[in-house]
Amino acid sequence: MRFFLLVTPFLWMLCEADVIVVKEMFGEIRTPNFPESYPSETEVTWNITVPEGFRIKLYFIHFDLEPSYLCEYDYAKVETDEQILSIFCGRESTDTEQSPGQQVIVSPGNFLSLTFRSDFSNEERYTGFDAHYSAVDIDECSERNDEDMVCDHHCHNYIGGFYCSCRFGYLLHSDNRTCKVECSDNLYTQRSGIISSADFPSPYPKSSDCLYRIELEEGFVINLQFDDNFDIEDHPEVSCPYDYLKIKAGRKGFGPICGEKSPG
Amino acid sequence: MRFFLLVTPFLWMLCEADVIVVKEMFGEIRTPNFPESYPSETEVTWNITVPEGFRIKLYFIHFDLEPSYLCEYDYAKVETDEQILSIFCGRESTDTEQSPGQQVIVSPGNFLSLTFRSDFSNEERYTGFDAHYSAVDIDECSERNDEDMVCDHHCHNYIGGFYCSCRFGYLLHSDNRTCKVECSDNLYTQRSGIISSADFPSPYPKSSDCLYRIELEEGFVINLQFDDNFDIEDHPEVSCPYDYLKIKAGRKGFGPICGEKSPG
Repeated sequence: MRFFLLVTPFLWMLCEADVIVVKEMFGEIRTPNFPESYPSETEVTWNITVPEGFRIKLYFIHFDLEPSYLCEYDYAKVETDEQILSIFCGRESTDTEQSPGQQVIVSPGNFLSLTFRSDFSNEERYTGFDAHYSAVDIDECSERNDEDMVCDHHCHNYIGGFYCSCRFGYLLHSDNRTCKVECSDNLYTQRSGIISSADFPSPYPKSSDCLYRIELEEGFVINLQFDDNFDIEDHPEVSCPYDYLKIKAGRKGFGPICGEKSPG
Repeated sequence: MRFFLLVTPFLWMLCEADVIVVKEMFGEIRTPNFPESYPSETEVTWNITVPEGFRIKLYFIHFDLEPSYLCEYDYAKVETDEQILSIFCGRESTDTEQSPGQQVIVSPGNFLSLTFRSDFSNEERYTGFDAHYSAVDIDECSERNDEDMVCDHHCHNYIGGFYCSCRFGYLLHSDNRTCKVECSDNLYTQRSGIISSADFPSPYPKSSDCLYRIELEEGFVINLQFDDNFDIEDHPEVSCPYDYLKIKAGRKGFGPICGEKSPG
């Protein structure tokens, strides 16, 4: 009698595939009736969602499903929104079926779906599975390669996210990734001197907006010369669309100037 | 003028050591006035606490303190409730002083304290430090060695904690660590048979409470014999204080029985 009471709710579920929404950061997923054998003609899907900045780790500590060629009868299917990651059945892996064993599945994003399905012929011999999942932090700082750096200078990972910061003397741009120099307030009052871009002769920093003012006493003119180490990003067709230098002297203006080598 | 406005609050703090309580899961800690040079005669302590199940990771991306023999003048001190983990000063590590460099400090528990102290003689030349901290999850499952297993069977780590589960056929004890077998309801009605402890000949599970009932038709007596593989934990002085076997037959009782080899 007690046995029937337990089984009844799962029989009722068979009419339509059951979908269970899971939003916890960790937990256990077991086949219906576990540790007793699972009912036939059952389909249950657990849709696991964790916050952005996390992935989902899933593994099985018990797995006992009816074996079949390519798992066409009973199976446990692990998938994302976009792709099937694994289909498991049986107890051990063979040429035509695969059991999860010690395998740990990690979702590419923050969503993972686990579907259990049994066909009509399960004679209550197989006990199903006992799976465990947990959210794992994504280390955004170590995942990118050098070509596609997530942060210009320093990357700081924390549980659930990351942030960037800049080396001493630099300021974080409003994009929260690139580092710029504070160079909007440079005043030169000596009769001769050298002005060079930040970090010169190393490449100049991204996203910089530098102003260099030269102010001498009345009665002097200013002679500005560039040496051969002039190198500002240019474009073969469009005139200085990215980086440039502009020169203003009273009402006169020159530029934008860009390109390699001395501009003259 | 602007400079004085900025410095004033920190001068006020010098009268007593300032203590700042930090409870965020990540963040940045900078010396007063950073990136300008730090004020003299300053002491500030940041007490960082994260929830149980986490540790605190701390590192410096900028470090520029007045160097001194054994850091007796200006220093950054990292400590827990119980011990000093590091004392840093200077810009580079020498025989008598140490700067943190790329060093990452991880707290043994969920508390970490960082103290910045400057002496009277700082002439506003050193720029101080820029430190970053974040909570890191403790993987309780991988930290224990085999002698001191945190879980009898399966250990499941999650961010901020862990839990145990048992192999198929076992039940988790109320201590949430040990696994016991369900063996309180065994009935033997055959005229002969073998009764063995769970997992025999492997060691029996911890925290088990097993009842084996033998019931035959009227007119029979029951002859119970033990073979030589009898092995129940005993004690040299006290009689069976840990594990034991008891036998009851009607009003008669034997035991508790324990020890190695056949009891007779």
